[in-house]
Amino acid sequence: MTHPTNPTRRRLLVTTGGALTWAGLTSLSHADMGEKEEAAKAAAAAKETDKAFPDYVAWKDADSMILHSSNTIETKRTAFGQSGITPVNRLYVRNNVNPPSNDIVEDPDAWEVEIAGVDSPKTLTVAELKQLGTTSVAMVLQCAGNGRGWFPHEPSGTQWETGAAGCVVFTGVPVKKVLEALGGMDSDAKYMTGTGGEEIPEGIDPDTVRVERSVPLEAVEDALLAWEINGEPLPLAHGGPLRMIVPGYIGINNIKYVKKLAFTEEQSSANIQQNSYRWTEVGVKGSPEYDSIWESPPKSWITSPVDPDEELKAGKVQIVGVAMGGMSNAKKIEVSTNGGKDWKEAEFVGLDLGKYAWRQFAFEADLDAGTHELACRVTNEDGDTQPEERRENNRGYLNNSWRDHAVEITVA
Amino acid sequence: MTHPTNPTRRRLLVTTGGALTWAGLTSLSHADMGEKEEAAKAAAAAKETDKAFPDYVAWKDADSMILHSSNTIETKRTAFGQSGITPVNRLYVRNNVNPPSNDIVEDPDAWEVEIAGVDSPKTLTVAELKQLGTTSVAMVLQCAGNGRGWFPHEPSGTQWETGAAGCVVFTGVPVKKVLEALGGMDSDAKYMTGTGGEEIPEGIDPDTVRVERSVPLEAVEDALLAWEINGEPLPLAHGGPLRMIVPGYIGINNIKYVKKLAFTEEQSSANIQQNSYRWTEVGVKGSPEYDSIWESPPKSWITSPVDPDEELKAGKVQIVGVAMGGMSNAKKIEVSTNGGKDWKEAEFVGLDLGKYAWRQFAFEADLDAGTHELACRVTNEDGDTQPEERRENNRGYLNNSWRDHAVEITVA
Repeated sequence: MTHPTNPTRRRLLVTTGGALTWAGLTSLSHADMGEKEEAAKAAAAAKETDKAFPDYVAWKDADSMILHSSNTIETKRTAFGQSGITPVNRLYVRNNVNPPSNDIVEDPDAWEVEIAGVDSPKTLTVAELKQLGTTSVAMVLQCAGNGRGWFPHEPSGTQWETGAAGCVVFTGVPVKKVLEALGGMDSDAKYMTGTGGEEIPEGIDPDTVRVERSVPLEAVEDALLAWEINGEPLPLAHGGPLRMIVPGYIGINNIKYVKKLAFTEEQSSANIQQNSYRWTEVGVKGSPEYDSIWESPPKSWITSPVDPDEELKAGKVQIVGVAMGGMSNAKKIEVSTNGGKDWKEAEFVGLDLGKYAWRQFAFEADLDAGTHELACRVTNEDGDTQPEERRENNRGYLNNSWRDHAVEITVA
Repeated sequence: MTHPTNPTRRRLLVTTGGALTWAGLTSLSHADMGEKEEAAKAAAAAKETDKAFPDYVAWKDADSMILHSSNTIETKRTAFGQSGITPVNRLYVRNNVNPPSNDIVEDPDAWEVEIAGVDSPKTLTVAELKQLGTTSVAMVLQCAGNGRGWFPHEPSGTQWETGAAGCVVFTGVPVKKVLEALGGMDSDAKYMTGTGGEEIPEGIDPDTVRVERSVPLEAVEDALLAWEINGEPLPLAHGGPLRMIVPGYIGINNIKYVKKLAFTEEQSSANIQQNSYRWTEVGVKGSPEYDSIWESPPKSWITSPVDPDEELKAGKVQIVGVAMGGMSNAKKIEVSTNGGKDWKEAEFVGLDLGKYAWRQFAFEADLDAGTHELACRVTNEDGDTQPEERRENNRGYLNNSWRDHAVEITVA
């Protein structure tokens, strides 16, 4: 288990019985805490509770979330529930730039999206899209930086731990149905490129701020233009009225308030495509020569018990968590109660929502009084196993190290 | 399509663009409406918007619901979404008696349930139950009286049409795991009997008001004691902190705020078991000699388009809806656009959440200008097809007539 090197990076993560506790995933026990840290804790707690959720996310369940900033809000590790589906009012929020006005979701059917790079280019309203077909997909939506909080070189960006992720159901029209209706894509197309509806301030090069991402064409197979999440109209905070959904692809590729969907020969010229979200070594800036952050890797974490202050009795303890395969089904999930020395297979329980979703797992451990380091690791159907160590990279992307996600608990 | 015989029974069902419209499922067009009916409409609209949701359901999405009374609140036919899962804030509410104080959900882990009729009877807290195991099930929760609004003899009770139903995910401990922990059930047990935590007023025979239901032992196989719905702690309105969940069984059998779970030789002596929720002919009161309302039958209905005032263009129209198999998977779904004269197979789309859930379906119709009567009927894996006609019964239970659920739409 990695302890963040800088105490200011430790964060309030767990709420127990209404009282904020200093848990983090750093297993910092009260005994370890010096006076300075106690003061820092109090200051952080005060800051946390003072912050108000901005209007566009005022409906979020504040008790289940960690407000980093108005555009970065994390789900607490204890707040995912055990149903396989993350409630929308607990789902993380992450915007690269400020969202557009809430006006755009007032009449969602009127929203327009331009479809380009097809035989018969056309601008379609959501109402028109709804007449082309409908389906749903359950998927893990996860920010590229989820788990960034454990990188020792302290990459810039939000210090997410586990909560910049959730498993939700998106409903909309398959992109394939849109292509069918418009005569198919251009023969030279290599990418599907979505453009977000954020307002671009005047006088600056749009490429510096435009949220526009390109994904390879194989992503079209399961992609949607979605107007609904978990049965509700897609709220602004999650990209309503219409979002480009690319199941299995990391959050940034799922373009919010999508106003243009194009089938293109080249990747977008936007900075967010060319230079951001690239795999580079620590200290190296992103550029087109490096791989883009697209597909999700296998990953899992324990969601209960995770609070070092939780009162657990020696004996049988249910260890539960979530496990995702990435681009193929989660096939095996193992749990260790001694920091990865020994592993036992745990059981997937509840719903199987398909390869892009996560699955709940449960493991009945028999724990003696004392401290235990709990870890889990998933293997997907392609045979890829979640690694022990994170892959170091400049911006702290795609941390799926099982060691970083381990937790220390104490039973009495 | 049956038209309710009494105009006062027609209700406001559809909200379009924020304006209340007089839709019902009665396909009453504006042209049909006399002045008297227009006045009734205005009065009903005023009454509807004046009513306030009681505190325990203040968090419901009022725009998606029809408030019949403080204990009977229906989901609008247009508000189920197309994701397969019904958002909790749109899920119907039905209580036989007033719910207990909201205090009971403030510390859900402390709630106690007495387990009786087992080898080692014991009272367990929710916290203790959580250590015995966890799983989830997606299921249609449906009131016995859903569809009562179409019975011509006007049975007493809420005049539900389609909205006393929803498909949700319950999470909790399998009853089988509880039995395992307590040494198994008594050998003479024939029923699983749950007792609700409602307060019984002093001075009256508890059997007259107690909410206590018995289900046959085969129901134990998939039954849960659930503390979570769609990933959120179970709210009071839906039976929190703990509910007995019997997948596939009609709503009343899923005991809210369950305070006792017993394995019994006899069915409960409560009136709600002995005399209510029994299959009897019109005019005949319920009593133990008649079959109890337990298992759900196959049923489906269209959710879009259903509004006679919706502006639809001739040509391709997506017809979408929900279809449930009852006690086995929905296997086939057919759609008719001419009131049941001809049927074509529609496609199941989106998530398959298991045999107790409903599935979304979609059908691309090619409609000429004019009026069309849309109907659907489901067949389950056991080979049972949703019937054309309702089974007449005194209290208006289990209406799964496809003809009653048909809708009339107009395309221009």
